[in-house]
Amino acid sequence: MAPILPPGLPESAFEAALARFREAVGTEHVITDDDGLARYQDPYPVGDEVPAGASATVRPADTAEVQEIVKIANEYGIPLSPISTGKNNGYGGSQPRLPGAVIVSVGERMDKILEVDEELGYALLEPGVTYFQLYEHLQQHAPSLILDCPDLGWGSVIGNALDRGVGYTPYGDHCMWQTGLEVVLPTGEVMRTGMGALPGSNAWQLFPYGFGPYPDGLFTQSNLGIVTKMGIALMQRPPGSTTFLITFDKEEDLEQVVDIMLPLRINMAPLQNVPVLRNIILDAGVVSRRTQWYDGDGPLPAEAVEQMKRELNLGYWNLYGTVYGPQPVMDTYLGMIKDAFLQVPGSRFFTHHDRDEATDRGAHVLHDRHRINNGVPSLDEMKLMDFVPNGGHVCFSPVSAPKGADALRQARMVRRRADEYVKDYAAQFIVGLREMHHIGLFLYDTTDEKARQETLDLARLLIDEGAAEGYGEYRTHNALMDQVMGTYNWGDGALLKFHEAIKDALDPNSIMAPGKSGVWGRKYRGQRL
Amino acid sequence: MAPILPPGLPESAFEAALARFREAVGTEHVITDDDGLARYQDPYPVGDEVPAGASATVRPADTAEVQEIVKIANEYGIPLSPISTGKNNGYGGSQPRLPGAVIVSVGERMDKILEVDEELGYALLEPGVTYFQLYEHLQQHAPSLILDCPDLGWGSVIGNALDRGVGYTPYGDHCMWQTGLEVVLPTGEVMRTGMGALPGSNAWQLFPYGFGPYPDGLFTQSNLGIVTKMGIALMQRPPGSTTFLITFDKEEDLEQVVDIMLPLRINMAPLQNVPVLRNIILDAGVVSRRTQWYDGDGPLPAEAVEQMKRELNLGYWNLYGTVYGPQPVMDTYLGMIKDAFLQVPGSRFFTHHDRDEATDRGAHVLHDRHRINNGVPSLDEMKLMDFVPNGGHVCFSPVSAPKGADALRQARMVRRRADEYVKDYAAQFIVGLREMHHIGLFLYDTTDEKARQETLDLARLLIDEGAAEGYGEYRTHNALMDQVMGTYNWGDGALLKFHEAIKDALDPNSIMAPGKSGVWGRKYRGQRL
Repeated sequence: MAPILPPGLPESAFEAALARFREAVGTEHVITDDDGLARYQDPYPVGDEVPAGASATVRPADTAEVQEIVKIANEYGIPLSPISTGKNNGYGGSQPRLPGAVIVSVGERMDKILEVDEELGYALLEPGVTYFQLYEHLQQHAPSLILDCPDLGWGSVIGNALDRGVGYTPYGDHCMWQTGLEVVLPTGEVMRTGMGALPGSNAWQLFPYGFGPYPDGLFTQSNLGIVTKMGIALMQRPPGSTTFLITFDKEEDLEQVVDIMLPLRINMAPLQNVPVLRNIILDAGVVSRRTQWYDGDGPLPAEAVEQMKRELNLGYWNLYGTVYGPQPVMDTYLGMIKDAFLQVPGSRFFTHHDRDEATDRGAHVLHDRHRINNGVPSLDEMKLMDFVPNGGHVCFSPVSAPKGADALRQARMVRRRADEYVKDYAAQFIVGLREMHHIGLFLYDTTDEKARQETLDLARLLIDEGAAEGYGEYRTHNALMDQVMGTYNWGDGALLKFHEAIKDALDPNSIMAPGKSGVWGRKYRGQRL
Repeated sequence: MAPILPPGLPESAFEAALARFREAVGTEHVITDDDGLARYQDPYPVGDEVPAGASATVRPADTAEVQEIVKIANEYGIPLSPISTGKNNGYGGSQPRLPGAVIVSVGERMDKILEVDEELGYALLEPGVTYFQLYEHLQQHAPSLILDCPDLGWGSVIGNALDRGVGYTPYGDHCMWQTGLEVVLPTGEVMRTGMGALPGSNAWQLFPYGFGPYPDGLFTQSNLGIVTKMGIALMQRPPGSTTFLITFDKEEDLEQVVDIMLPLRINMAPLQNVPVLRNIILDAGVVSRRTQWYDGDGPLPAEAVEQMKRELNLGYWNLYGTVYGPQPVMDTYLGMIKDAFLQVPGSRFFTHHDRDEATDRGAHVLHDRHRINNGVPSLDEMKLMDFVPNGGHVCFSPVSAPKGADALRQARMVRRRADEYVKDYAAQFIVGLREMHHIGLFLYDTTDEKARQETLDLARLLIDEGAAEGYGEYRTHNALMDQVMGTYNWGDGALLKFHEAIKDALDPNSIMAPGKSGVWGRKYRGQRL
């Protein structure tokens, strides 16, 4: 099948560029066949009509090849779509925002761990380095360090940080713990930020700011360059750790639970890590199939939810966190945490020592969290995709103050709409430090056109309803980026205009990831939804 | 005296703009007389010929007036130089980088504390709010919160954060703890960053990133806008605190001390705050005059230094830090700290309970640090300026890995050159977390042309010598900005080219703080040194 070309691009230009790409990176690293491209498609597409994917994928071997690709793209007007490992599932995966763009799959061949300093606690990485790979390396070469993983460990450490993904240890804010970038800019120059701009500095991975304007944040959730190296801080392994689970019986307990959480979290003690509060759908989802609880057509009925709680020995809400330190510190903190949360009627407290993973299906998440919170990457959460046939998910991820009333208002708003659209709502609430992330996953059958469209409609509705209440998404699916950016419209859309001005200055031919986060270069602004 | 106009500006345009400024902010808020402008001059000028200051100062009352000023500046081609309170002493004070620019003194009338949330621990401020003012407010309205102050508390909380100043509590990295900006852009539009872009969000001061590219860092050490509001996180008051002093006898102890520090600091315990290691010149400087120790012409002789140590009961190096928490935590941490550092032969350990401020001159800094490390602003360090007649200082502030060998190499390099140029070298080394800041202050008589020029020559020499060793400044004086930016020249100066591209896109008429941090708009690029 002929590939879908980017809008307005003559086929001759496309072919000429492909020839040049092949010269630059080698024929075998320019992929244009349907089978080869299939793996770069969004695994969880939304909408009844799935947008076309990439027209080609190019796999550079080093920074110089990335520069060469970018220069060719400028010459022929080829829109590029860089990915690290492309595991941004639920947000579009590897698929370009602009149909027909050429994927620059940076991580496939650039996957070296360039440096790990055990004493200073950092790593310098290429984009292809996954959490699993870094984990193995640390185990072998720097066992006193642990890494902070997101829920799934197969993705790129760089890709996650650049998309402002989060993890669950004290180093959970990946964007904050990033130190030092090497970036190929949209016109092909290569730049190093922070102390990396000072030849011979031994502080590139130690001091992020350098001198003058601090630009690193511009390269997150953005389309202003291709990051080819990044430093990340790594935590010292604590002397011990205990992971706890506190179950709360009723949906409306959410308000009290979140209000208890803030004062325990804001000083990073006794809640030392980023605790996560998950609803029963999410916990049941990773250890069972929906049909086990209900095989009717509508939303999961209350009895099915009660049965999940009973059989898995969990609550409607389940709070997971980890305390770190020498035993006396852990004991003190666990005592404080227990005292605070057990004020909620019907709540129960367990540690990972109390429940056996092998025999207790409801303890699966507890043990998985224990591993993740100790820097051991996992793929267990992927089992959630088996809850419904051909399962996929799209996320609704609003941010607000960490207040119980806000949490409950959001949970009810989303659950009501999810029921209406008959999509299972697997929810988590995360209190980072001062803010709350609410991640609502809607599960649906990705092969069912109608379900895909309903999921998209549901997400669109919630984005608008959320914005009307002052809730804004921190991250979103390709299909929703324009809408979400549209909600950040204070001052007549001043923020987007600002981003567009920078975009056009740095990327005069609009070749770099058009439309990412709702920012389009001049050439493609008509593509905005 | 007729004011020095900005390069290339016809007097008629200047006069017309002044008339418009007067309309915009009121006649009494446009200052053009010599006496009125004198207070905006650099209090510590360097070089034998002191550059001209501002041609005028304009004092807006609110964001709308700032916008109006910026629009007028664009219309008439007037370079502006925004300041908050202008207390950036040692780095140029209030004085514009470009002689003849018009100061926009944002903080004089915009000095409101807009909000303090005691539960969530943040403040939303206007640029004129000083540390003293915020301290008084918290004492009265939110006593459970403390603020992080730099050495001197008279400056602007916003101004300090935007210049990437630091303090000494766990919230010492002011730029990192900033959350949410309102900025008037160089073309006059006003923008809010992060969740501030989402109308109705209650998380503007809670979640810095918002959605899409994260631009806040671009407004630090930069000239891309005028910040009119900023949020800052505030720490919860700890249950107790003890400040300690550890003295080290010999200059060469520095290497061992810094090497001991890193593992104690990197986990934020037992060294919970940003400890500061000061040389005897700095400590003696705030409680005495140079003539008391030596009245000859050359550098301070070794005997004078020994006498300082003896009379003040201090070491050549003196380490100050604070532990926080309930008593048992403080006792544990103090024990660990003591054990580690007392391995250095000749070292001695004190807490602020051990030495009486009223009777022990050498304990002055210890008690001042105790106040600062507990959020009580101070001006005591200003006394350093009395060490020499008409005293001023310029800073040499390189950043490196927190390694003993780097510290000692830097200290020796600087002391040798300072002796050669006969400038007293008051030094401190600060291990933030993974990086080390070395702040060397050179003290000189600001009325002495020759001393000013020698100080400038000394700083210039050290910047180049430091860069050759891989040490780069994190902040510098107006007169040195081009030189310092020139040392961040990796990849054929890619970083500066990047900044210039953004500068020209956002500030097409080059009106905003030309030359700040070595970044000049197109119009003034010929002014680069």
